Amino acid sequence: MSKEKTVEQITDMEQDFGQWFTDVVIRAELISYSGAKGFFVLRPYGYAIWENIQAMLDRRFKELGHENVSMPVLIPESLLQMEKDHVDGFAPECAWVTFGGSEELEERMCIRPTSEVLFCDHWAQVVKSWRDLPKLYNQWCSVLRWEKSTRPFLRHREFLWQEGHTLHATAKEALEETEQMLEVYAELYEDYLAMPVIRGRKTDKEKFAGAERTYAVECMMHDKKALQGGTSHYFGDGFAKAFNIAFSDKNNTLTAPFETSWGLSTRSIGGIIMTHGDNNGLSLPPRIAPIQAIVIPVAMHKEGVKEKAEELVERLKTAGIRVKSDTSDQSPGWKFAEHEMKGVPLRIEIGPKDIENNQCVACRRDTGEKQAIALPALEENVSRLLDDIQKNLFKRAKNNLVENTREAKSIDEAKEIMEKHGGFIETMWCGSAQCEEKMKEAAGVTSRCIPFEQKSIGSTCAICNKPADTMVVWGGAY
Amino acid sequence: MSKEKTVEQITDMEQDFGQWFTDVVIRAELISYSGAKGFFVLRPYGYAIWENIQAMLDRRFKELGHENVSMPVLIPESLLQMEKDHVDGFAPECAWVTFGGSEELEERMCIRPTSEVLFCDHWAQVVKSWRDLPKLYNQWCSVLRWEKSTRPFLRHREFLWQEGHTLHATAKEALEETEQMLEVYAELYEDYLAMPVIRGRKTDKEKFAGAERTYAVECMMHDKKALQGGTSHYFGDGFAKAFNIAFSDKNNTLTAPFETSWGLSTRSIGGIIMTHGDNNGLSLPPRIAPIQAIVIPVAMHKEGVKEKAEELVERLKTAGIRVKSDTSDQSPGWKFAEHEMKGVPLRIEIGPKDIENNQCVACRRDTGEKQAIALPALEENVSRLLDDIQKNLFKRAKNNLVENTREAKSIDEAKEIMEKHGGFIETMWCGSAQCEEKMKEAAGVTSRCIPFEQKSIGSTCAICNKPADTMVVWGGAY
Repeated sequence: MSKEKTVEQITDMEQDFGQWFTDVVIRAELISYSGAKGFFVLRPYGYAIWENIQAMLDRRFKELGHENVSMPVLIPESLLQMEKDHVDGFAPECAWVTFGGSEELEERMCIRPTSEVLFCDHWAQVVKSWRDLPKLYNQWCSVLRWEKSTRPFLRHREFLWQEGHTLHATAKEALEETEQMLEVYAELYEDYLAMPVIRGRKTDKEKFAGAERTYAVECMMHDKKALQGGTSHYFGDGFAKAFNIAFSDKNNTLTAPFETSWGLSTRSIGGIIMTHGDNNGLSLPPRIAPIQAIVIPVAMHKEGVKEKAEELVERLKTAGIRVKSDTSDQSPGWKFAEHEMKGVPLRIEIGPKDIENNQCVACRRDTGEKQAIALPALEENVSRLLDDIQKNLFKRAKNNLVENTREAKSIDEAKEIMEKHGGFIETMWCGSAQCEEKMKEAAGVTSRCIPFEQKSIGSTCAICNKPADTMVVWGGAY
Repeated sequence: MSKEKTVEQITDMEQDFGQWFTDVVIRAELISYSGAKGFFVLRPYGYAIWENIQAMLDRRFKELGHENVSMPVLIPESLLQMEKDHVDGFAPECAWVTFGGSEELEERMCIRPTSEVLFCDHWAQVVKSWRDLPKLYNQWCSVLRWEKSTRPFLRHREFLWQEGHTLHATAKEALEETEQMLEVYAELYEDYLAMPVIRGRKTDKEKFAGAERTYAVECMMHDKKALQGGTSHYFGDGFAKAFNIAFSDKNNTLTAPFETSWGLSTRSIGGIIMTHGDNNGLSLPPRIAPIQAIVIPVAMHKEGVKEKAEELVERLKTAGIRVKSDTSDQSPGWKFAEHEMKGVPLRIEIGPKDIENNQCVACRRDTGEKQAIALPALEENVSRLLDDIQKNLFKRAKNNLVENTREAKSIDEAKEIMEKHGGFIETMWCGSAQCEEKMKEAAGVTSRCIPFEQKSIGSTCAICNKPADTMVVWGGAY
């Protein structure tokens, strides 16, 4: 180990999961605290993960016909108030601008907590005919919500996200859009972040302020708590009517269009950490990792070692792999620990003996397994290992979800499961908000969603015993 | 022409350049006014131009070793005040947040007008050793400046930009970075936006609040006024000392590092419009155009025409050209005018007779020239035409700059040139701010920059006649 810099220890996750999470976030240099309470700096390594998420989503959005736009960061108070449920939901956590330079504003403005009203205001100006529909818009930006308590990635006063907003001639088309975009989020989570999700609809109690329906993808973290991964909302024509958006259809009749919105934020990075991380730090799925493989020369001072390391880097780069070498003056041991902490999926060691044997040694971050790789077959072996790691991380997370989801037929049973095991509970539910409330009081869980994939666990509500044909998933949530 | 929608006229640029500009911005659907005064909506077509600018810059930044990060949108007042010149420059035009939810803040916070202090605050936390340097950071975001009067693209209260911030162990390295990043901006303007630039240094009067040196690229618009295209600042170690940023060098001595910042905004899109546009609307350089070629079927109802148009689109897409077809129910004449207005560099017409002759007709946006293209040679001809258009737009703009830049040896001569011709004036200058002030009073121009490419126009200041060895470019500016 180098004397100048040693790898700092992080808290064991079994000892204190919350502290482990914070330690990882800071030590892996994803985030740093800012001078303003509740605001965070997203550092290069954290931002690079976000850029990979952005790249996948932006590509899919555009393939599906969406266009990016930029709306103002500020919302005049009167505009926010135009849709009643919406203002009730968001006004209490808005940051308010009251002065421009030295002049007090005639009307105060909030920093957008979300941009529905800005899109509606714009559409009211530009949408006139059926020819102008659909509008399929997306915006990459940050939003502000004045939270009381904050945690890196999970709850910021300001967070980065994308918000899609679309406007359609028919309710059917808008509903299809709502479902389609949820599926894009599911694809991101399952295929890229290696996180299995439950796709479902939120109960009325949990839905978005102003929405008719909210869909969500829900994930289970390593500590068995839920994280809402992304949401997609169907607004009906409620917002359109509140904002006087109307188009003349092909029969020249003025009609209110139907709206959706959908968002996914940097919370997803919190999800990656809490799904795949371990006591050595972060563990990133290869498809989203800024660095997929790190080449570490061993006995770097020996002739030809550094050069060989750079040669491997060039070969892997050419093969389309995101790869770097670490030729800093730290010891190999320090470097091993450092890149494990940063969750680099594959470490490739190369030293004088390896060069003699025309091989290198690959070490998987997910399992710790080491294997020699013959240099002539470097590229295909690294690609194969990265694929394996991606699949293995998904499999592990899927096992965690399946093993920790249990059925309950009564509120007592639910309570017992939560006390004994935690995790998710599936029950039948009558549809009433009172029963949701009771479940929360008794078992400390909230309804996560009404999964699209329903199954029958009897025919009565687990809480009130009234007839019920809806299955709900419950859990403690971030 | 279709009866349902006719192409709205725009003001002639010779009649009223300012109104022509606004008309183009609105009619080409780049921008729309928002409900909040001074704030604008960047619509899909305008945002797509920005995305192409972003793609080029982001690629170059990363090639040169920079990493993207995200800093908070809010700055506590005490943080803004830590560097005196900086706060004097920006505080008067800040938007202030005073309430979070229903609670008044103990300390008010401004929405970032620029982020130097946020980067410094972060670096003071994380920079400790020479190993931590250089920091080569960039941020894509929006900033706010509470301007009294605003104009689309040229002066917004909120605008999109990138701000690079870097920290170096030596002054030399920081100065090289400052110059290097100016050259990246020059490359964007000349090679992509087809706008020739003058690279130079700003006078002390015109430099950035808190900077030791400011470099800029300056462009000439069609109306002969100047637009500052991008700036790159060298801060010395002033900010570092104000924020207590220090690193231990290889001899273990605590030293203040040297800083730079550099920014380019959506103003550049205003520059594209005012450089290349004409009385038919926008005219976009192919390398930055969201749509490089628009295929318009003529006599679309005839059998096979629409299909042939789609076939051309597919072929050109495969060849890497950004191409679309317009198969809407508008007339061809309406479509021609519409896509001219939107500045699409090349129009490709295809009708029954063209199909018979195995050809299509290409019409250049820059010259209006039409030519038949044999379909087997479609791809290479379209690529060649796009290259030609790119070069021709640059040549025209270069001619405009050269023809409208004149030397002056006295303040009277300068005044006369401005009254007769406008444009840029080159004079020798003694270096005093009073002379700049006099020049402004007499000829209505400000110093644009001290070009890197100097030439001698005598040996005395054109204003005060004192000895001078510096040549300055002057002009009216946006």
